[in-house]
Amino acid sequence: MTLNLGKKTLKPSPRPSYTQPAQSVQELQARLGREKVLLERAQRRNYSYDGIAMGVTPALVVLPTCTADVVEVVRFANRVGLPIVARGAASGLSGGAVPVQESIVLSFTRMTGLHIDPQARTATVQPGVVTQQISEQARPHGLWYPPDPASFRTSTIGGNLAENAGGPLCFKKGVTGDYVEALEFVDFAGQVHRLERKAYDLAGLLVGSEGTLGLITEARLRLEPIPRYTRTLMAIFGEVGQAAEAVSEAIAAGAVPSKLEFMDNGCINAVEDYLRLGLPREAAAILLVDTDGDNPLIVEEELQWVAEACQQHGAAVRVAQDAAESEALWKARRSISPAIGAIKPKRLNEDIAVPRSSLPAVVRAIEALGRQYGLQVVQFGHIGDGNLHPNVLFDPRVDAEEKVWELLHEIARVALRHGGVLSGEHGIGLMKRDFMSEAVDPETLEALRRVKAAFDPHNRLNPGKVLPEPHSPAH
Amino acid sequence: MTLNLGKKTLKPSPRPSYTQPAQSVQELQARLGREKVLLERAQRRNYSYDGIAMGVTPALVVLPTCTADVVEVVRFANRVGLPIVARGAASGLSGGAVPVQESIVLSFTRMTGLHIDPQARTATVQPGVVTQQISEQARPHGLWYPPDPASFRTSTIGGNLAENAGGPLCFKKGVTGDYVEALEFVDFAGQVHRLERKAYDLAGLLVGSEGTLGLITEARLRLEPIPRYTRTLMAIFGEVGQAAEAVSEAIAAGAVPSKLEFMDNGCINAVEDYLRLGLPREAAAILLVDTDGDNPLIVEEELQWVAEACQQHGAAVRVAQDAAESEALWKARRSISPAIGAIKPKRLNEDIAVPRSSLPAVVRAIEALGRQYGLQVVQFGHIGDGNLHPNVLFDPRVDAEEKVWELLHEIARVALRHGGVLSGEHGIGLMKRDFMSEAVDPETLEALRRVKAAFDPHNRLNPGKVLPEPHSPAH
Repeated sequence: MTLNLGKKTLKPSPRPSYTQPAQSVQELQARLGREKVLLERAQRRNYSYDGIAMGVTPALVVLPTCTADVVEVVRFANRVGLPIVARGAASGLSGGAVPVQESIVLSFTRMTGLHIDPQARTATVQPGVVTQQISEQARPHGLWYPPDPASFRTSTIGGNLAENAGGPLCFKKGVTGDYVEALEFVDFAGQVHRLERKAYDLAGLLVGSEGTLGLITEARLRLEPIPRYTRTLMAIFGEVGQAAEAVSEAIAAGAVPSKLEFMDNGCINAVEDYLRLGLPREAAAILLVDTDGDNPLIVEEELQWVAEACQQHGAAVRVAQDAAESEALWKARRSISPAIGAIKPKRLNEDIAVPRSSLPAVVRAIEALGRQYGLQVVQFGHIGDGNLHPNVLFDPRVDAEEKVWELLHEIARVALRHGGVLSGEHGIGLMKRDFMSEAVDPETLEALRRVKAAFDPHNRLNPGKVLPEPHSPAH
Repeated sequence: MTLNLGKKTLKPSPRPSYTQPAQSVQELQARLGREKVLLERAQRRNYSYDGIAMGVTPALVVLPTCTADVVEVVRFANRVGLPIVARGAASGLSGGAVPVQESIVLSFTRMTGLHIDPQARTATVQPGVVTQQISEQARPHGLWYPPDPASFRTSTIGGNLAENAGGPLCFKKGVTGDYVEALEFVDFAGQVHRLERKAYDLAGLLVGSEGTLGLITEARLRLEPIPRYTRTLMAIFGEVGQAAEAVSEAIAAGAVPSKLEFMDNGCINAVEDYLRLGLPREAAAILLVDTDGDNPLIVEEELQWVAEACQQHGAAVRVAQDAAESEALWKARRSISPAIGAIKPKRLNEDIAVPRSSLPAVVRAIEALGRQYGLQVVQFGHIGDGNLHPNVLFDPRVDAEEKVWELLHEIARVALRHGGVLSGEHGIGLMKRDFMSEAVDPETLEALRRVKAAFDPHNRLNPGKVLPEPHSPAH
């Protein structure tokens, strides 16, 4: 069985195939309950892919309902010599939850415990809780959980923790890991660890480790009071560099917008083709900006700083007068995904982050790469953090997928050349592990491998992710 | 040579003494410059202690001025087989910077590079920068660096990073690690790593690791806009539990005070003896509360919520009408250290953190322990985080220091019994490493040891700190 990921045709590792006697599976079923263990091939196949990549059908799928179940599965995996791939809603965009060899998939979707403590301002969650649920349950107490990955209506908090997910709010509010007060995880040996964020901060290390260091079974997350006021503007620019400069200037002037979203010309036209919102097709860039806080005067003042900075850089600015108009402006941003999805049968979503000052050069370099490869590339992202999502649109019947992957690799290289990083918020996963050798010094890569070995000595936790294949067989 | 730490009389490890030929020291001097290497015993002795403990006089003290110097020292240490103990202003209160065996002390006080980037809102600092300097340099740009350990006028940021220091502001603003965007560190082999906070978050792991995993040589810290308004109140309670309940209630009502400080009766009387400020000697507890923000109305409203919660729990509340009065109220808090220092010749400062709901029980249990041991204990701390600093006051000519350490151990046990942790902000260091076995499950301790071994395979980075001595020689 091979894994088709464009140019990367991955073969399952030469590990001996899963040939344990059926008896041990029956034993697992007996311990966990029959309904938690999926054996039918048709069922198992549903657990072979995520939001971006197709992997190997797992040998076994387990749906734990508690930490003790997870411990059982880890012990079972150790007995039969199978790796474990953890998975939530599988909406991830880096292939992090995709099995690349015969594996046990541990699907956390039935671990949905959620407890809000309004006094302590915390949410204690199991990994299968849908991210949006946290804020919904917290709202009656005037609280919310700010991190807002685009997928938050479907993604699970376990996946958000595994990828340290961001979102439009992350410039002001920070990413998933900034809200973690404590974690419970099950290690490679089936031991349960309950961690506060004290020396050494193993909890922080687990966050963003994509299931390769341990299995997160519970987290205590910090909640915040809901800001009372929000204001929105849209700024339309004739040139990409002006948009980036306006953002830098507004931030330097003291504005901390809660959202700062960027769309390039390709993106604008895609949305316009899709919805006819009346966006200016000739514009080089659109910024969508929210400011929020508890003081309407200051929220307004911050918005004005941004508006002035945009106007000084040649933008036409539209300030939403009420919530309905704000909603209408944000509709353009929210429609990007379906809009660009309608252009070509397939797309691959890059996720780079670069210093804000490099954004104009990076956007232009990526445009040029698209032309060079003869592939359509549209760009949008969270410009406050310099987090850009160039999307390559293609038709697999016409465009060689290998070429698409080459282009993605070149886009990642543009980010690295401009002092950026490989991933803003989607994680490294399967998609970018081969780029890691270019992004990280060999000495630091070696340090990462030592950490992996310290947590997963037998390489059974989500193997084949994050870290690149060692070059020498000595590793 | 032995290390006197009360009941713990530590002998240097049986590692062979430092007997390398003088030639290699001369070589190090030649490479670094003679003035960076201290050889005189009288000079070296100054580097044997920190704010709380006395250690072994180091074999050699090096004062690097750049990362390349640090690399040289690590290579030299590896050649001659000596451990390295990193040190800043040595104001730490857990013995973290104290050598416990013949060592090279690396004193970072000459690495004082500090660059503010107002556009990016960051400060890039070398470890020897005095913490207060960061906010002072940032202030002209309307920015500040919020973490404020009590020592921030003298402590260095390297030490703050090593201990993940907190301070009165940490309830609202977070601790040192929350402001770290990127780190440079030198590893056990002399390799330089430059880390963003990406998977795996090694930067986060280095923060709070007390120099036992690597040597931090630079950090990029996030700065924040200075809040425009601050308001202060003092609340005087007849009973400790009422103070804790008032705090919980105000927080639940939506207040996020920027400072929330607690003083017990012993503390109040110590300050009153010292300064005659007119504090009520019969009060069981005083709360000092600041609210801050950009909107004077909301800052005032938040203060009112706190005032009302305090009054409902029987407190007399005094709201400062202006900055001068606020300053006068805070004078009581700021005088605690000199005030309790004047009572007895010596004191040892504990640093526990417990859930806010446990505070009344914990404060009472610690009071009872003080009576039981016949030692004076005063308590104060950052009540918003449940971070308490019980101080044991004693006269070494009268009180056996061993008994003081026993009492400290019992205080730590009270914290653990009430769901708390060993250290709120001072770190584990030397002082609490023996308590770690009681605070952390054996499995998690084993995971911590694996992490230590992955970063420091020869145990040369600040040995004898954080992790307890293994019980079996198998380790």
